[in-house]
Amino acid sequence: MLTLDRIFNASVVLKDILRETLVIKANGIAPSCDLFLKPECLQITGSFKVRGSGYKIANLTPEEKERGVIACSAGNHAQGVALAASKYGIRSLICLPDSAPISKVEATKAYGADVCLVNGVYDDAYRKALELRDEMGYTFVHPFDDEDVIAGQGTIGLEIIQALDDVDAIIVPVGGGGLISGIACAVKSVSPKTKVYGVQAAGAPSMYNSVRNGKIESLASVSTIADGIAVKQPGENTFELVNRYVDDICLVSEDEIAAAILALIEKQKMTAEGAGAVSVAAAMFDKLPIAGKKVVSVVSGGNIDVTSLSRVIERGLIKSGRKSLLAIELVDKPGQLREVSRIIAEQGGNVTGVSYEQTGSTESINGCVLRISMETRNYEHVQAISTALADAGFKNTQA
Amino acid sequence: MLTLDRIFNASVVLKDILRETLVIKANGIAPSCDLFLKPECLQITGSFKVRGSGYKIANLTPEEKERGVIACSAGNHAQGVALAASKYGIRSLICLPDSAPISKVEATKAYGADVCLVNGVYDDAYRKALELRDEMGYTFVHPFDDEDVIAGQGTIGLEIIQALDDVDAIIVPVGGGGLISGIACAVKSVSPKTKVYGVQAAGAPSMYNSVRNGKIESLASVSTIADGIAVKQPGENTFELVNRYVDDICLVSEDEIAAAILALIEKQKMTAEGAGAVSVAAAMFDKLPIAGKKVVSVVSGGNIDVTSLSRVIERGLIKSGRKSLLAIELVDKPGQLREVSRIIAEQGGNVTGVSYEQTGSTESINGCVLRISMETRNYEHVQAISTALADAGFKNTQA
Repeated sequence: MLTLDRIFNASVVLKDILRETLVIKANGIAPSCDLFLKPECLQITGSFKVRGSGYKIANLTPEEKERGVIACSAGNHAQGVALAASKYGIRSLICLPDSAPISKVEATKAYGADVCLVNGVYDDAYRKALELRDEMGYTFVHPFDDEDVIAGQGTIGLEIIQALDDVDAIIVPVGGGGLISGIACAVKSVSPKTKVYGVQAAGAPSMYNSVRNGKIESLASVSTIADGIAVKQPGENTFELVNRYVDDICLVSEDEIAAAILALIEKQKMTAEGAGAVSVAAAMFDKLPIAGKKVVSVVSGGNIDVTSLSRVIERGLIKSGRKSLLAIELVDKPGQLREVSRIIAEQGGNVTGVSYEQTGSTESINGCVLRISMETRNYEHVQAISTALADAGFKNTQA
Repeated sequence: MLTLDRIFNASVVLKDILRETLVIKANGIAPSCDLFLKPECLQITGSFKVRGSGYKIANLTPEEKERGVIACSAGNHAQGVALAASKYGIRSLICLPDSAPISKVEATKAYGADVCLVNGVYDDAYRKALELRDEMGYTFVHPFDDEDVIAGQGTIGLEIIQALDDVDAIIVPVGGGGLISGIACAVKSVSPKTKVYGVQAAGAPSMYNSVRNGKIESLASVSTIADGIAVKQPGENTFELVNRYVDDICLVSEDEIAAAILALIEKQKMTAEGAGAVSVAAAMFDKLPIAGKKVVSVVSGGNIDVTSLSRVIERGLIKSGRKSLLAIELVDKPGQLREVSRIIAEQGGNVTGVSYEQTGSTESINGCVLRISMETRNYEHVQAISTALADAGFKNTQA
């Protein structure tokens, strides 16, 4: 069973690999508590994963180092293993399904790994990795269910207590459970009064279900923008450690995750991935008994591709009334577009897109629908524009 | 004239106000040099400005503190003054033109300032602030042309040298010149071999022009997404300090600034505003003699509104071929859309938008144009889709 001395040892061993991340106060995100962040999105490789794989690799025997390591991941774990292996000057091989996005393959190579593309899906790549381990004598680096890996992740717990020794609660994203197992073991050993809470995406509640039902359960499928914690089944070690040390686990929705990502950009100028932002979402949306408490949310990673980020921002802007879409019914006669444009301009809406179609769905047979996208200030502003149009005789709906 | 002892004194005085910001290594952004960042976007208030206003306010006499401070700004300076005044328990009044975005007004109030909305533009608000200073005895906190303010900003220079004493060059955004004056004075005093370079947006080259022409010059207008450094005229103190200490100043374009913002999000998980990213743009696009050198770019701030950020990301995605728009000529007969969709799907393009219009501009009188927006991997991918469509007889152009 994992003990504090291993985690402390990891913190010493990892000093040369890690980038220091500071605990920072985050005002204006979660008004009900005194929120701080541990921003592992700013960690080297953009996530905490390098801690666990780094400590695992540091503990290999010279013979094991000689043969190299193997892992299976399309994400943060791959980059952590690749970087840690490079730092120790050993070979790493990462198995990926050949359907993995080219950008992930390139990123993994850029950190110094060799990549083995496997025909099929994740499970096929995983089987291939175990095969190669057995054939070639590589050491397999598990993404979470390994005591060295868990000890490495636990160093975050020590750093939080060192930085903020009167912290009341720490909120941690949970996928396979490696991160929270390490943090909870460290924190409960040095500061037993500090609560440790886990958060999962509602679309991938594997640890949540397993803990509630008292046994390891497997999900048939997972679906969430927090792909870094979309894990179907907890590990055996992590399930036991979570049961022993973690105070509670909660769930957050996709919209709550998106809102947390947007808040981190706007208020703290940092980019979190979905998995990294669930801990902030839990504090923002009062999912845990933390009102009035001093709380640290661990922002575990920032590796979100910009296409997804762009969608999250779009959705956040629409949800907060800063982008809006009006469908306006027009009769087919000259001057209508000019009149609509005048009203929107007077109300201070900034038009960013226009489309215009004749359709059978309007009242008049000559009717058509004008769709206008606008930048607006907030919901009240959208409403004011809509009302001004209606007052001038233009029937319209918000879409 | 500003001297090192003032800047050192500022670093001591400011300890309780500032959030620590670490110098971090930034791989993969500027391949020709060894790039580090000083991320003041992660500073409290989201920019370095709190350093200068904090030191200015700390040095006020008890009588001046009793009367309070006044400033004129719609941006980072306002928030810096408001926060610093709150920390010292004194009153701050910020004059803003009444055309200022509501979000800026709210942010300034949230940091504890009173806001005075002035009818007109920035210059009107500035005049009003000076009037109120004379009437009410407030101390005016200039955004850059003040020795205490400059000394406060200079603390960044000391921190960089402490963190990285063998740095070859420091690159600093330049608006009015307060930040670079302070940093250059500090750095040249403690590490004369270190080069200090300035960067301005090509759309607002006031210090650049003034230094080149040997006298303070004023621009008639400025236009850039780097609104934090869109300053029409350098200060007298800052012009003198820049001439004395700064090695060179370069310019960067709007597209270069946008590319730097996107690179900071993707590679370093941090959000910079345009003004904050110009120093990174200069390193990315080789605007300065830094090949092979150890370089620190000061990312001065991160207060970009998400609507602008969303546009920057869009533009970056389009420029790197990750979003694309094809205009495809169709003849007006059934099955055409299905065929086009099939080809795009086969090539792995992800359709995100479709519009369809009949137009007189096609070859055939029955012609129409189908516009398709897609998520793609890169330019080569867009090109492959375009070619596959052309091979199947669909004339198309990239827009």
